[in-house]
Formats: sequence, C-alpha cells, structure tokens
Amino acid sequence: MELLKKRILTDGTISEGNILRVDSFLNHQIDVKLLNEIGKELQRRFQNETITKILTIEVSGIAIASIAAQYFDVPVVFAKKHQGINSDPDSYESHVFSYTKKQPYSIKVSKKFLSKDDKILIIDDFLASGSAVSGLLDILEQSEATVSGVGIIIEKNFQEGRQLLESKNIHLESLAIIDSISDGTVNFA
Amino acid sequence: MELLKKRILTDGTISEGNILRVDSFLNHQIDVKLLNEIGKELQRRFQNETITKILTIEVSGIAIASIAAQYFDVPVVFAKKHQGINSDPDSYESHVFSYTKKQPYSIKVSKKFLSKDDKILIIDDFLASGSAVSGLLDILEQSEATVSGVGIIIEKNFQEGRQLLESKNIHLESLAIIDSISDGTVNFA
Repeated sequence: MELLKKRILTDGTISEGNILRVDSFLNHQIDVKLLNEIGKELQRRFQNETITKILTIEVSGIAIASIAAQYFDVPVVFAKKHQGINSDPDSYESHVFSYTKKQPYSIKVSKKFLSKDDKILIIDDFLASGSAVSGLLDILEQSEATVSGVGIIIEKNFQEGRQLLESKNIHLESLAIIDSISDGTVNFA
Repeated sequence: MELLKKRILTDGTISEGNILRVDSFLNHQIDVKLLNEIGKELQRRFQNETITKILTIEVSGIAIASIAAQYFDVPVVFAKKHQGINSDPDSYESHVFSYTKKQPYSIKVSKKFLSKDDKILIIDDFLASGSAVSGLLDILEQSEATVSGVGIIIEKNFQEGRQLLESKNIHLESLAIIDSISDGTVNFA
C-alpha cells in the first residue's frame, strides 16, 4: 500500500536498536484518515473471505480494527492484556511473549464474544516474531472459531511471523512489508 | 441519547457492587455502528466549539474517540497508561487514581502531539469521580492547549466528576447520565 509506505518513510522514526516508531500516525497519535484508507484496503484484500467479527489486541490494534470494521460491517473484539477487577472470569486465555519487555503476559477474551460459528479476521499493527498473533490464534482454537485471515499494517519479514502463519496456511495480508532497517533507513520488500 | 440508553438497558449488565458493565458493545466487544451514532451525536453537541484534536486515554476511550474523530475531521491522541521501552521520554505526565484497583497510575502524552495552539476535545467512556479526566486536564494545562470540551458516553452523576468539570466552567456533554444503580437496575437522570 503505497500511501502507507510513503507515510512510514516521511513520518516514521528509527530509534536506537533500529526500532521503527510510528507513533505520530498509528500508535499514540492516530491519523484517522489514513486508517480509513487502511480499512478500505484490508476490505479489498479480504473481500473473498467470510468474516463475522474482527479480533485484535489492546492497545495499538483497537483504533485500526475499529475503523476497518466499518468496511466489513462487523463488530470488533479486542483481547485484553490488562485485566481489571471487572474482568470476566469465564474467558479464553493465552500467553504472549513481549520482546520489548522481555517477559510473557497473558491475554484474555471473554467466552461470550467468540463462538464456533464465528469467522474471524485478526487485525494487528505489527507482525514481527508473531507472538501476539499466535496468542490470538490459540484463543480462536479454544473457541473453535474459524480463522478467515490475518491483516497486518506493518510486517517485519526478517522475523519469523510470516513463516509461522504460512505453515498454518493462514491467509496473511500485510500492507507494508519491511525487509530490513539499517543505518536509520527502512527498506521495503 | 435514546439509542444508547436503550442499549445500556438491553445489553448492560450489573455485577456485584452495582457496577455497570457494557463490555458487550463498548469495552471489550465493540459495536462500531453504535459508535458511529455516538460520534455523530458528539459532533452535533460540540458543533459550536473549535476542535483541532481529540484526546482520550487507553484502553476503552480509543475506539470511541477514533470513530468520533471521523465526524470532527481531526486526529486522535491517546494518553498512555502502560509505557513500553519505546515510550517517548519527553512527555507530559500526570497521575490518575484508579477506584477499581485502589491505586494511582501515571499517564503520559508525548510533547510532540500537544501544542498551545491545539483546541482539544476530551472523549472518554465513563465519567464517575473524574479522576481520569482530571489527569487529562492536568496534561493539557502543562501543554498550554485549550480545552474545548469533554464528551462522555456514560456519566454516573452520583459521583463528583460533573461538579469538578462545572467548577472549571468546562463544556461537558454526557450521552447517557445515570442517577443511580440499585437492585440491578439502572436509573437514568
């Protein structure tokens, strides 16, 4: 998606350790117009799949999934990382390893919001190691829902996330695929 | 807003301690169609205010603010509760007391995304004690941005949030105002 790639080159910043930051339009400040274009493009790419619900994970996936859901005409469910005292005890649970924090955390989705009749599109901001997506897939397996696909905004294809999804024959669409980040420069595939 | 009140009565649940849960359409599963109606209503109520940006707070405010932002044609910024290693060290910071967790937590907004020229509409899901909104107002004061208003989806007017905002002469609009919750029943104002 050219509009997105251009935006990454213009407004993305590379911090220490070749970490791409997109907090001026995706992760902290949100450019809702860009998200609308992203939503339309995701709908175009998954138009041949049956989708009854979009599943994402807090925090960064929520805005993307909510805007995109308008083009699919389905509700969004987000997996919770941070459980409050009001959390539903009757939930599916899985574990995700955070590479930035170097520790695992649990994610939960209330059993009320996923059923075996659901056909789910997973949407997330980044795909790198695939740990977050794996946690979501684990939850979908527990619920016996069908996985219709995985839509990613920015994929780092020098990590193992893509292989993991391809090995499961999951329909993966990434709107910007990064081959490498070196010397402060993003190189797209 | 009648549509919202009806939805609260139909799909909201009251858990122990007279806590209203709206996780089937607002806080965990998200009804994007309802959020669109909420966004239109917020725009109608703040149509006479100048607004350059919407400020909200993770997690539950993000979807609401993002969908609403389409009707205001402005970007969204969300205050972060959970700071990762990629967080911007150059941020405005404030503190919010969580009544559900009985402890304070810090919220941050990168200085890049708020300026003294901004005219900010704060949007959040609930207004009760007003602690979250107070933290956001503190951050706006630090940034010298103007507060154009506060838009709330569900207000519990038996707590002190409204008084706090009225004492500061802030334009407050709440789409559903709850007078009391007793014996498992929600009573609107």
